[in-house]
Amino acid sequence: MIKRIKEEKKNITVAPEELKLHIGKEVQIHGSIYKIRKMRGFAFVLLRTARQVIQCVYSEETAGFALEELQEESCVRFTARVQEEERSKTGYELHLLGVTILSRPEEASPIVINNKLVDTSIENLLNYRPITLRNEKERAVFKIQEGITCGMRRFLQRNGFTEIHTPKIVYSGAEGGANIFKLNYFGKEAYLAQSPQFYKQMMVGVFERVFEIAPVFRAEKHDTSRHLNEYTSVDFEMGYIESFEEIMQMETGMLKEVMNYLNEYCASELELLSVTLPEITEIPAVRFLEAKEMVAREYHREIKDYEDFEPEEERLLCELIQKQTGSEFVFVTHYPSKKRPFYAMETAGHPEETESFDLLFRGLEITTGGQRIHSYQEQVQKMERRGMNLGLFESYLMMHKYGMPPHGGLGLGLERFTSKLLGQENVRRATLFPRDTGRLEP
Amino acid sequence: MIKRIKEEKKNITVAPEELKLHIGKEVQIHGSIYKIRKMRGFAFVLLRTARQVIQCVYSEETAGFALEELQEESCVRFTARVQEEERSKTGYELHLLGVTILSRPEEASPIVINNKLVDTSIENLLNYRPITLRNEKERAVFKIQEGITCGMRRFLQRNGFTEIHTPKIVYSGAEGGANIFKLNYFGKEAYLAQSPQFYKQMMVGVFERVFEIAPVFRAEKHDTSRHLNEYTSVDFEMGYIESFEEIMQMETGMLKEVMNYLNEYCASELELLSVTLPEITEIPAVRFLEAKEMVAREYHREIKDYEDFEPEEERLLCELIQKQTGSEFVFVTHYPSKKRPFYAMETAGHPEETESFDLLFRGLEITTGGQRIHSYQEQVQKMERRGMNLGLFESYLMMHKYGMPPHGGLGLGLERFTSKLLGQENVRRATLFPRDTGRLEP
Repeated sequence: MIKRIKEEKKNITVAPEELKLHIGKEVQIHGSIYKIRKMRGFAFVLLRTARQVIQCVYSEETAGFALEELQEESCVRFTARVQEEERSKTGYELHLLGVTILSRPEEASPIVINNKLVDTSIENLLNYRPITLRNEKERAVFKIQEGITCGMRRFLQRNGFTEIHTPKIVYSGAEGGANIFKLNYFGKEAYLAQSPQFYKQMMVGVFERVFEIAPVFRAEKHDTSRHLNEYTSVDFEMGYIESFEEIMQMETGMLKEVMNYLNEYCASELELLSVTLPEITEIPAVRFLEAKEMVAREYHREIKDYEDFEPEEERLLCELIQKQTGSEFVFVTHYPSKKRPFYAMETAGHPEETESFDLLFRGLEITTGGQRIHSYQEQVQKMERRGMNLGLFESYLMMHKYGMPPHGGLGLGLERFTSKLLGQENVRRATLFPRDTGRLEP
Repeated sequence: MIKRIKEEKKNITVAPEELKLHIGKEVQIHGSIYKIRKMRGFAFVLLRTARQVIQCVYSEETAGFALEELQEESCVRFTARVQEEERSKTGYELHLLGVTILSRPEEASPIVINNKLVDTSIENLLNYRPITLRNEKERAVFKIQEGITCGMRRFLQRNGFTEIHTPKIVYSGAEGGANIFKLNYFGKEAYLAQSPQFYKQMMVGVFERVFEIAPVFRAEKHDTSRHLNEYTSVDFEMGYIESFEEIMQMETGMLKEVMNYLNEYCASELELLSVTLPEITEIPAVRFLEAKEMVAREYHREIKDYEDFEPEEERLLCELIQKQTGSEFVFVTHYPSKKRPFYAMETAGHPEETESFDLLFRGLEITTGGQRIHSYQEQVQKMERRGMNLGLFESYLMMHKYGMPPHGGLGLGLERFTSKLLGQENVRRATLFPRDTGRLEP
């Protein structure tokens, strides 16, 4: 017997967003029981739906069931009357009439998840992630994270970027170095991609502008509040640029769009987390060496390393720039060649500097970008100067050999950005299931 | 010195889509020289831009440069006059006036990429992927693939699904078995995720409906035209279902939306590849055993394996269903429990069957889905019957223990779907940089 499957809208339960259209009426609604608060002669029952927690009122006279039927983290379908209620945040509350129990938990959660905050150590918060994410504020973080990627995607698509999917098992590391996970790939040694760098560059030769939002893997042994060994990288790469400033302009536009998107679509989550978004009109940019000197002067610090920032310097630079310009973002440009990868374009006449930048936000680097070398000869010579084995990069160099436009791009760490935007002290809080040197589970 | 970076629109060159607004006018445009076709007294120069190949006309009298300046795969900025031209597909052509050469290739490509088709073996096509993807038809495949994900995303977001990012380095395989890549993770054994199964289920407890579009990894040793060792999986999972039919209904709606999206946004690529999209109003569904019997009867075949499909049977079933119903899609439902994972919900009263389905399209399985067990006791008992080590699944079982709604979902192979939709004979053709047992590069 052949059945026919059609797209169908189920109309048994009402969508929470539409409850306000049903004031005075009887509806069915489903969700998970978040919290039961017994009062004198009645009870508040908070129902957790896909996005909102909805206040329901249980009273023995009207409900056709005993309150004891209900249990926190039970999944239910309620029949209820939608009643206008000024004191409720939504302007209404649900007066319960009947219940169908869809499932019951086996045990009560060992962690209290239905208070304003999950009051436990970060270790516990992460160990019990499948449960602690059910907390209203914990999950709001990831609704906002989704909003960030939606805003970026909307911006990039409008600006002619094509979204691509590139392999994560690779034959060679883009950044090189020891921070790379190794893998046995059918008898060959393979690696987990540290970034889609090589592939997004290749794809500039195909689509001119491309982007990818995907996992990257770094085997770094750092165990800090800002490091993850697997994270989501937002990468874009654009051809036909005249200078790397265009990449920073594009990122500025993208970040503005993210703020607009969040204000439009995630207002309730932003309010729940008491987050005010930064306003972006322009982002200050300062050269690496000048930045080092500015910080040294202002804070009476000695410059120990002329080739890199210490985390403390990044923090102080952000503080200083905010004081001077009001901006919580700052581009640092022209990083030393020694500290940038082999594909970084050097500044004309200043080979010790690169046409590159980082974006710092509230004390932390969230983006690294720059212009890449597009000339075959120039790229080969730089690799030879660095003593690299050209044979390993044959398929990478193919694009240079057969013609590439001037191009550049950037990579942004989604979790770092989310975490700083929400004022969190640890990037793990902006990661659903973080991976660090000690954590592989859940 | 602090610079200020703003979002800026560069107005030097005109966007190819806007050329038709400039008929009769002089413009600047950039791109890569795709092909030079010398004629008597003039030449056609095809310019490859981000999405279109644009016909330009070179003639010595009007161009301020020698034709020899131009070279295939050179990146250029042209000054040109936009001239109405009925014989051109776009209704206009560009008469070249001047050129700025932005870059030149080091060598001519060893593979001819600027004919209608790249006429070479699939091996070569893939070995030279950074170059062969520049062919107009090759790249169109991936513009369509992008359109597929855009259509899916639009549908899923409208239907209340939240997009999530889950880890690809995992502590335990979802599907189990030997087809899993192993990894040394700071001294511990870890795996590459075969699917986001565990995580998307956990997230149903948080957001009710979730989806993810991300890479998955299968260490399968099959080297066929339909297997990849890394592919992009479109996964969704939804809570509060009453039967697994709702998942199929949702997929039907999603596929309809994909076709609408492609017709709207990828019409030129569909035309270039001579693809007519299937029309979807409903999708037939047939039970696994009945499907086996239908094929056996119709094609006089003996059933050798009552628990699984042979690839040939899938092909014949699709042929038969299309003959009977006109549909190129068919759901096969109620797969045997033995062949489904431990989390598959069994059919009430028929524990040998599961509330599961595959979606076949043009002879190939592109989706696997079904309802999952949500009761802790039921899940634990099934795992015990299968002799599984419960200790390894502690964080997975957390969600069942502390309460889960009835739920289910599916995973769809993006490359398989793209490839079948475009009538390709090999899934590698719908993968930018495929990974198979023999291929790790580029």
